[in-house]
Amino acid sequence: MIATGVIVEYNPFHNGHLYHIKQSREHTDADVIIAVMSGHFLQRGEPAFVDKWARTKMALASGVDLVIELPYVYATAQASDFAKGGVMLLEALQCDYLSFGSEQGDIAPFLHTHSLLENKNSAFQENIQKLVKTGLSYPQALNTAYQKLIPNSEHTYADLTKPNNILGYHYVETAQKYQTHIKPITIQRVQAGYHDAIQDGTTIASATGIRQTIQEQHSIQSIKPYLPNTSYNTLKDWYEEYQHFASWELFWPYLRFSILRLTPEQIASYAEVTEGIEFLIIQAAKECQDFNNFMQKVKSKRYTWTRIQRMLTHIFTNFTWQQLKSANLPSYIRLLGMTQNGQRYLSERKKFFTLPIISRAASSTDSMLLQDIHATDLYMLSLGKNKMGLDYNIPPIRL
Amino acid sequence: MIATGVIVEYNPFHNGHLYHIKQSREHTDADVIIAVMSGHFLQRGEPAFVDKWARTKMALASGVDLVIELPYVYATAQASDFAKGGVMLLEALQCDYLSFGSEQGDIAPFLHTHSLLENKNSAFQENIQKLVKTGLSYPQALNTAYQKLIPNSEHTYADLTKPNNILGYHYVETAQKYQTHIKPITIQRVQAGYHDAIQDGTTIASATGIRQTIQEQHSIQSIKPYLPNTSYNTLKDWYEEYQHFASWELFWPYLRFSILRLTPEQIASYAEVTEGIEFLIIQAAKECQDFNNFMQKVKSKRYTWTRIQRMLTHIFTNFTWQQLKSANLPSYIRLLGMTQNGQRYLSERKKFFTLPIISRAASSTDSMLLQDIHATDLYMLSLGKNKMGLDYNIPPIRL
Repeated sequence: MIATGVIVEYNPFHNGHLYHIKQSREHTDADVIIAVMSGHFLQRGEPAFVDKWARTKMALASGVDLVIELPYVYATAQASDFAKGGVMLLEALQCDYLSFGSEQGDIAPFLHTHSLLENKNSAFQENIQKLVKTGLSYPQALNTAYQKLIPNSEHTYADLTKPNNILGYHYVETAQKYQTHIKPITIQRVQAGYHDAIQDGTTIASATGIRQTIQEQHSIQSIKPYLPNTSYNTLKDWYEEYQHFASWELFWPYLRFSILRLTPEQIASYAEVTEGIEFLIIQAAKECQDFNNFMQKVKSKRYTWTRIQRMLTHIFTNFTWQQLKSANLPSYIRLLGMTQNGQRYLSERKKFFTLPIISRAASSTDSMLLQDIHATDLYMLSLGKNKMGLDYNIPPIRL
Repeated sequence: MIATGVIVEYNPFHNGHLYHIKQSREHTDADVIIAVMSGHFLQRGEPAFVDKWARTKMALASGVDLVIELPYVYATAQASDFAKGGVMLLEALQCDYLSFGSEQGDIAPFLHTHSLLENKNSAFQENIQKLVKTGLSYPQALNTAYQKLIPNSEHTYADLTKPNNILGYHYVETAQKYQTHIKPITIQRVQAGYHDAIQDGTTIASATGIRQTIQEQHSIQSIKPYLPNTSYNTLKDWYEEYQHFASWELFWPYLRFSILRLTPEQIASYAEVTEGIEFLIIQAAKECQDFNNFMQKVKSKRYTWTRIQRMLTHIFTNFTWQQLKSANLPSYIRLLGMTQNGQRYLSERKKFFTLPIISRAASSTDSMLLQDIHATDLYMLSLGKNKMGLDYNIPPIRL
């Protein structure tokens, strides 16, 4: 059986994701598609729009055979660690391919970029550090340093100003660095533009655009054309049950209280919080009644919106620098859901898996798994859902 | 000028308090009455029903001339530390008398009890420790050990099963131990029974009864007979502004989130949290949607309701064992309000005060004062009031 992996958030699963799955299956002649998917907090430092079980259901209904959780520590990390967690899980799951979306849909520029940066890595890292010290944000510094390295040659190099390309580059890097058996391939994205709002007359829109439209219209009616049926119905059921979707705007009272309860020293101990920004965070939380105003006060040239949101995620979930630094490679495969086809794959191949499968969290002392369970509790509590410890109770979703 | 002090919570100020002030003034021929009053969290480990400025207003309108804040660290402490903070502040304010309420209204039993326990202190403390180890709560152990010590003599001894008498005993103890110039006196309480609900046909009811009636009836109409006019009107204005009064029931979503955000080790680091109760607190917070259910699950023979609520207060306000242990004697006099008479006393006597007066909190590094300011912020935030740092902005109330 050929297994092809994807590393995803599905926030929510839309027609663009459906296209990517179909193309990935075709390009690799895959028998099974395995998605490593973030849990309740995402790489941009935000709570997921709907919970991981709802997103698992959407994925299984639209061509994914196995959904595995990307643990919190990777899911909320910067690109290199996000990629490390995802790729190493796909390797443990014995995947043959990793398929990611990119603007050009050509793997060669990623391979060239990787060779280039690997050969000149120390000069590259030094340059980035120098540029960060001049006041550039990390992504800006990275890109400027990168542009300086690109030689005049017949090769094309990946455009690292695009978030998806940065991830793609790190997938290739991880796959090679850890000498995995995975072959990275890339599928061209259609209707690209992660930050685009919904455009009329198209059936593909970005996840960001879809979420924005729902939040602005307080209705999910108009986003129907952009979603597979199961995605639409899942969102519809969710909205009927909760009357809202998860967001920092919704969670703001709890986030604000958490910030204001802590001392500056305690805030500074949380992962990714650096260089005195704790004072600004506290001051802004004192002043601002809503999340957007708060962000406007905290953001600066130095820190991207995403970086600040990641700090907030870690403050919210009580996740410290110490915990971040002690994290290493994934230690378990957390199964969120499977189709019959996915189950067949598990039966045939799990004896070759290099990590244990966890179908339902039991008593465990694995700090990474405990953080996933903890994140679920705080997410549910902030949504107004009263059931704690769902990771211990909900079995893998079967379709 | 003769100055008489009282140590109070005024939660809220009612006719019983009015009676106590009048009697105290008469018995001591006082020119000025000084109240050291708890801030936003009280000795029973609860948020105050209304904020400290509203309670100051009530007190000034009913015979108190100066209102001084009892810092958080004493206001939320067990009786001996509560008394220490209050008495030492009255001493710093050059008070001649301390007047407290008691069941008998006779100071002699308190003085006898103090001599008795001072002479037999080591045996007494040993006995208490032994009894606590058999599973008794601290108050039960204290009382049992005390009963054993009482000799057959012509003296009467204070009944230490009554919360007010326990406080009275500690006032006497502190006044003598620190060789203060304060003379303790006591006024008989009318319509005693701190835990009594409101009785028809009386004009004095306990603060607990008054609060219960308001919460049950969702109205303040029926408690009018039990309050001086200013108290009633202050509560009325408050209710019109907020539509609720502060309580753990109201603050429960924030308290619950705070508990569930933390690890057991972190919970155990908070003041008064001992011997594994952190696991029970977390488990109960997972299960319970309201505060009362939560308390039913956590309470035990070992811990009084009050003791558990004090733990929760410290978790809520991020106040650790380390902070509690490093606290010593009061270091400032925080002025919350004054009448013209009170102001005259300040002008004449403040040069003799042994601590600095703080009228409005300015930038300070005094950890006790910072905790008062912090407690105000969290109290206001949980009430839904958006203004932070009120301690920096609100000047002393003048009447």
